[in-house]
Amino acid sequence: MESFSIEQINLMDRFKRTHFINTLSGFKSVSLIGTINKSGQTNLAIFSNLVHIGADPALIGFINRPKEAAPHTMANIIETEFYTVNHIHPGIYAQAHQSSAKYPEHISEFEAVSLTPHFKPEISAPFVEESNIQYLLKLEEVIPIKLNGTFLVVGSLQQAFIQEDVMDEDGYLSIEKANSLCSLGINGYYETKLLAKLPYAKV
Amino acid sequence: MESFSIEQINLMDRFKRTHFINTLSGFKSVSLIGTINKSGQTNLAIFSNLVHIGADPALIGFINRPKEAAPHTMANIIETEFYTVNHIHPGIYAQAHQSSAKYPEHISEFEAVSLTPHFKPEISAPFVEESNIQYLLKLEEVIPIKLNGTFLVVGSLQQAFIQEDVMDEDGYLSIEKANSLCSLGINGYYETKLLAKLPYAKV
Repeated sequence: MESFSIEQINLMDRFKRTHFINTLSGFKSVSLIGTINKSGQTNLAIFSNLVHIGADPALIGFINRPKEAAPHTMANIIETEFYTVNHIHPGIYAQAHQSSAKYPEHISEFEAVSLTPHFKPEISAPFVEESNIQYLLKLEEVIPIKLNGTFLVVGSLQQAFIQEDVMDEDGYLSIEKANSLCSLGINGYYETKLLAKLPYAKV
Repeated sequence: MESFSIEQINLMDRFKRTHFINTLSGFKSVSLIGTINKSGQTNLAIFSNLVHIGADPALIGFINRPKEAAPHTMANIIETEFYTVNHIHPGIYAQAHQSSAKYPEHISEFEAVSLTPHFKPEISAPFVEESNIQYLLKLEEVIPIKLNGTFLVVGSLQQAFIQEDVMDEDGYLSIEKANSLCSLGINGYYETKLLAKLPYAKV
């Protein structure tokens, strides 16, 4: 094994350190978050730091970088409360990744990366039409993480749209059947292969 | 597509709803967290809700369930400050999963599931000897999520131990070469296959 102390890691150049630390924590959920502001300007951004927070109530969070670094998604969510999360499959991952470029506020990433905004009845936030698994969250709380100026944005599940034949009888979504990808670090995209679904562990 | 409103989801029985919501947010990092209390009693528990919080300083968080549901890991971390995170590969995933059973406090899951506690010089917390990627965190902050009584436990990276030949020149850890798994929901384990490492996206 190779050993790396934090002092050694801090001596790496900025990009090397970023890759190292972002990949160390392991594979991640990766999705596109779709929002809209009050003027009707849509926004689309790729997020990989999503986290399951609880099933009852159904809460899902994501880490938003400091406001200066990533202003549009969180501002839109605070303004309009609702936002969509859209899984990414091999047919759209390159476009999804491109949404991480720093487009100015008046440019919609939907248009810039050629993904289709899809509006559903009575829902203001745009979904990604090409996505096979989509869900709608309502903002519940923005929790500041003072250590580094980031935020944990917590939303409650409102509605989910799932490709047919993905849900097993026990409610488990076999998202690999919808070709949902996971990511590693800031730029690695992976397909998955089921090893096993294990039974509930008992003593 | 199948549509599920939150009202329909809430009508599912508890286990079905748990599976549905836990899988909806996508693939997850899955690791074993090793701790020790002041009396020298070790503890090992599987966690899948880890999240990258920042690279400078290097911060990694995980969601801990309410204290009553998952008391030992967080209590040990608060007591002794340091904890280890250990990636899971196909050779140990069944044992790792078994650590989620509710063993009483005086039982070490290391022994119960037959994984080997490994102590390194000057580090109190136990690593998992069988793990190919291991790192040490120091507690920085426990952030309560009042919405459901869970906690975001934030630690700063102190040291990492990586199987040789996993780190690329740019610092990216190709953790699939160490056979690190990801998980889905509370009981699905997956191998991964690299689709692509994409360049930094520019406008």
